[in-house]
Amino acid sequence: MTTLGELAKTLELELRGDPTRSIAGLAALELATKDDLSFVSEKKHLSKASDTNAGALILHPDWVDAWSGCALLSDAPYVAFARATRIFDNHPPCSGQIHEQAAVADSALLGTDVTIDAGACVEANAVLGDRVWIGAGAYIGHGASIGADTVIKPGAVICHAVKIGQRCAIHPNATIGADGFGYAPSAEGWVKIEQLATVLIGDDVEIGSSSTVDRGALEDTVVEDGVIIDNLVQIGHGVRVGRQTVIVSQVGVSGSTKIGARCVIAGQAGLAGHLEIVDDVHIGGQGRVASSVTEAGHYSSGTPIQPLRSWLRSASRFTQLDQMAKRIAELEKATGLDQQEDGKA
Amino acid sequence: MTTLGELAKTLELELRGDPTRSIAGLAALELATKDDLSFVSEKKHLSKASDTNAGALILHPDWVDAWSGCALLSDAPYVAFARATRIFDNHPPCSGQIHEQAAVADSALLGTDVTIDAGACVEANAVLGDRVWIGAGAYIGHGASIGADTVIKPGAVICHAVKIGQRCAIHPNATIGADGFGYAPSAEGWVKIEQLATVLIGDDVEIGSSSTVDRGALEDTVVEDGVIIDNLVQIGHGVRVGRQTVIVSQVGVSGSTKIGARCVIAGQAGLAGHLEIVDDVHIGGQGRVASSVTEAGHYSSGTPIQPLRSWLRSASRFTQLDQMAKRIAELEKATGLDQQEDGKA
Amino acid sequence: MTTLGELAKTLELELRGDPTRSIAGLAALELATKDDLSFVSEKKHLSKASDTNAGALILHPDWVDAWSGCALLSDAPYVAFARATRIFDNHPPCSGQIHEQAAVADSALLGTDVTIDAGACVEANAVLGDRVWIGAGAYIGHGASIGADTVIKPGAVICHAVKIGQRCAIHPNATIGADGFGYAPSAEGWVKIEQLATVLIGDDVEIGSSSTVDRGALEDTVVEDGVIIDNLVQIGHGVRVGRQTVIVSQVGVSGSTKIGARCVIAGQAGLAGHLEIVDDVHIGGQGRVASSVTEAGHYSSGTPIQPLRSWLRSASRFTQLDQMAKRIAELEKATGLDQQEDGKA
Repeated sequence: MTTLGELAKTLELELRGDPTRSIAGLAALELATKDDLSFVSEKKHLSKASDTNAGALILHPDWVDAWSGCALLSDAPYVAFARATRIFDNHPPCSGQIHEQAAVADSALLGTDVTIDAGACVEANAVLGDRVWIGAGAYIGHGASIGADTVIKPGAVICHAVKIGQRCAIHPNATIGADGFGYAPSAEGWVKIEQLATVLIGDDVEIGSSSTVDRGALEDTVVEDGVIIDNLVQIGHGVRVGRQTVIVSQVGVSGSTKIGARCVIAGQAGLAGHLEIVDDVHIGGQGRVASSVTEAGHYSSGTPIQPLRSWLRSASRFTQLDQMAKRIAELEKATGLDQQEDGKA
Repeated sequence: MTTLGELAKTLELELRGDPTRSIAGLAALELATKDDLSFVSEKKHLSKASDTNAGALILHPDWVDAWSGCALLSDAPYVAFARATRIFDNHPPCSGQIHEQAAVADSALLGTDVTIDAGACVEANAVLGDRVWIGAGAYIGHGASIGADTVIKPGAVICHAVKIGQRCAIHPNATIGADGFGYAPSAEGWVKIEQLATVLIGDDVEIGSSSTVDRGALEDTVVEDGVIIDNLVQIGHGVRVGRQTVIVSQVGVSGSTKIGARCVIAGQAGLAGHLEIVDDVHIGGQGRVASSVTEAGHYSSGTPIQPLRSWLRSASRFTQLDQMAKRIAELEKATGLDQQEDGKA
Repeated sequence: MTTLGELAKTLELELRGDPTRSIAGLAALELATKDDLSFVSEKKHLSKASDTNAGALILHPDWVDAWSGCALLSDAPYVAFARATRIFDNHPPCSGQIHEQAAVADSALLGTDVTIDAGACVEANAVLGDRVWIGAGAYIGHGASIGADTVIKPGAVICHAVKIGQRCAIHPNATIGADGFGYAPSAEGWVKIEQLATVLIGDDVEIGSSSTVDRGALEDTVVEDGVIIDNLVQIGHGVRVGRQTVIVSQVGVSGSTKIGARCVIAGQAGLAGHLEIVDDVHIGGQGRVASSVTEAGHYSSGTPIQPLRSWLRSASRFTQLDQMAKRIAELEKATGLDQQEDGKA
């Protein structure tokens, strides 16, 4: 429980209305009660403000006439809302202690105020920065290094020699630095290529639950500062992900592909190996990226769902597309339309 | 080892044949020996019954003339088979004990006959119902609540404040209640939106290995009673999955999407965010669901595999589809067919 | 640090040049320094050799004239490189000890020189072969059996009765032998089919991080010798994967499908259930395999990414494909082209 005045102060926002008003929590416009702070992130949602029961709104100064109640004014209301979530955050705090049921190697180097929870294992020569939090059952391999204020959530596995920057969050059951998928074919079967390089993760990176970032064979896998990666994402060995790029759930990035800065790769998209994706590329959900992308912009692939029967016809025709195109060309020839086309061109 | 008579009694089925006949196990028709009980789930499989060596069959009373051997008669033979698997179940039983290498907070509230295996961690104020089984290395976060007779398998992570109902199974390495993927874009990069809500899971729910169900930002993620979720599935924050819906492996459901009851979402399908899917919708494998589905029924998308060379031609023509359609229209105009069409319509 | 002469001896390769030359590591052609050994895997990369700073190269005897420096000659240079990675391998070695914070059942049967790391749990009647390494926090279920020289990495879960062969690697957070996804529909909801069979994994198999291989209902799930499986792969219950087959990241194989030997299933492909895929089949990335594949060869499906606007047109036209084909047929009829076709055929 806080007051609107305190919120305005903490968030450094201009307040319109009663600073003593109590605010118990945050809620979406539709669900907010009079004790809640809510927000309007975009002008197109402004019409919903008239129906909300919220006790106060974060909104843009330009929109203030559309709302007669208490308000916190921000040029970037969605960012202000994001900052406000920290004030109401209810995640349990760390204990600041090394649990007696954790296994920490003598040679591990621990900063100040490190938390290591029950069942976690920190191997020899690992380096944990100040205020690092290793969750229950998490694993920090030999010589791995975790920057200050980074949290490794329960069950996450950080393999040997991996380097993770500051203020990162590695979510539960994620695996960073397991062997990349490299084998040479031989008459006797697949010969494993030992993965000799590691994974380097910058500052302010989040990696989602059960995501996997493989170590490189000869060249490190690199995730640059400010990258956010969702759950169940695969980052192959030797991949580079440029700063502030977003990778949504279940995306797969094959080995050695380089992704630029500020890209958005939507859910379930798949990138083949050894590609270059320039900065500011957006790939749609389930996108099939089989070759490099050399121009910024939005790209998509795939087909939309249809009722089963009509889809069966579309899918069947898809396999005949080349013949269809040739038949069109024949028709154009037969009708003389191809000549007209040539004439126009 | 049991007898046919005992099986008939336990399963409450009518028996035809010798009740003293020994039955050692369950097997498919093709592989069953004379000591096995087998089953015919659908009439179309009835012809296989003539070749089976099974000692007895579960089948529908209407089909009984097609089989001269011992039989257990059921109006729902596949359900009867499912119930029979419980009798032959060989999963190791729980110990009913708290392992000395488990870490259980003093303030955790434990029902009767709770099992907590080695390396598991149960945090402060967690509530475990009667006969709950927490597997080795599993994690139960602060204030999480697990209903009676639910089993949390090894390595699964249940984050703080998550509520799970009765008789559920959360399979190994699944993660329930990690942070949803929410960030606000700012000039300095992505600003994390703390995920303040939680995950509510009903009764009789199964969630597969390495699946991830994220906690909500402001609104809870909800999985209703009787839902079954396969492995490696992503359920985004604020999603609602209606009762008895089936979600097959590697499906991704983006944030705030609401799925109705009794839906079937087949493997690797992807649902965009903020959609509404009504009850009784079936989405085919790899389905690309980019907009809401307002009518029950079967839907599909995608294209079938072809030999590489012909696929390359189809895929290339796909990018020219709009021109092809326009060329057809030109041809119709040139030949006067468009007028005829109008005449017909 | 080693010498070229020692490398030649260990790798059993012919040496050209100074055997006393020091070699500090392995590197790709573009990044190698004079202290590195590099390699040319295929003739098409030979041109890059002229620009490399590598101190020595592994290459094919036929290509030796294209490079004037030190060389190790191999008929299979990529395999020779793979073998060389073992010499420079920097993975931390196992301790050969049972950590005091591991939980090992009295009835577990351990071979010689077994390592069990902190937080691991080995249940009753499990059998670990010689030199098996169970990583931190890994779980070995009741009666599971792990062959000699196999490593189970941190956080991996091997369920009861699973059998894994020799020289395998199960990577972090993988789950082998969790329940297959089997339920019978009833008026009261889904009735679980207990999964009574198990998983059998051959020798020399690798299974990637967070991959899931489910146990069979009545028939075992089988992964044959020499199979390599990448991260986040789903192998359903009752599946059989033939020897030396490669399954790339995020592939899903539905229940009871049989895949032949030496197949390559590229990333994110999905295979429906109850299919038969013959030997030597290659399925392209995101391939949609809805029916059996009866001939060896390369297959693909899907559509390529396009800029968003043009893709929207293609995707929209896809739903009209059947009408387009019919309109072409009408045009052929109207122009008499259909008769000519018949005449030709």
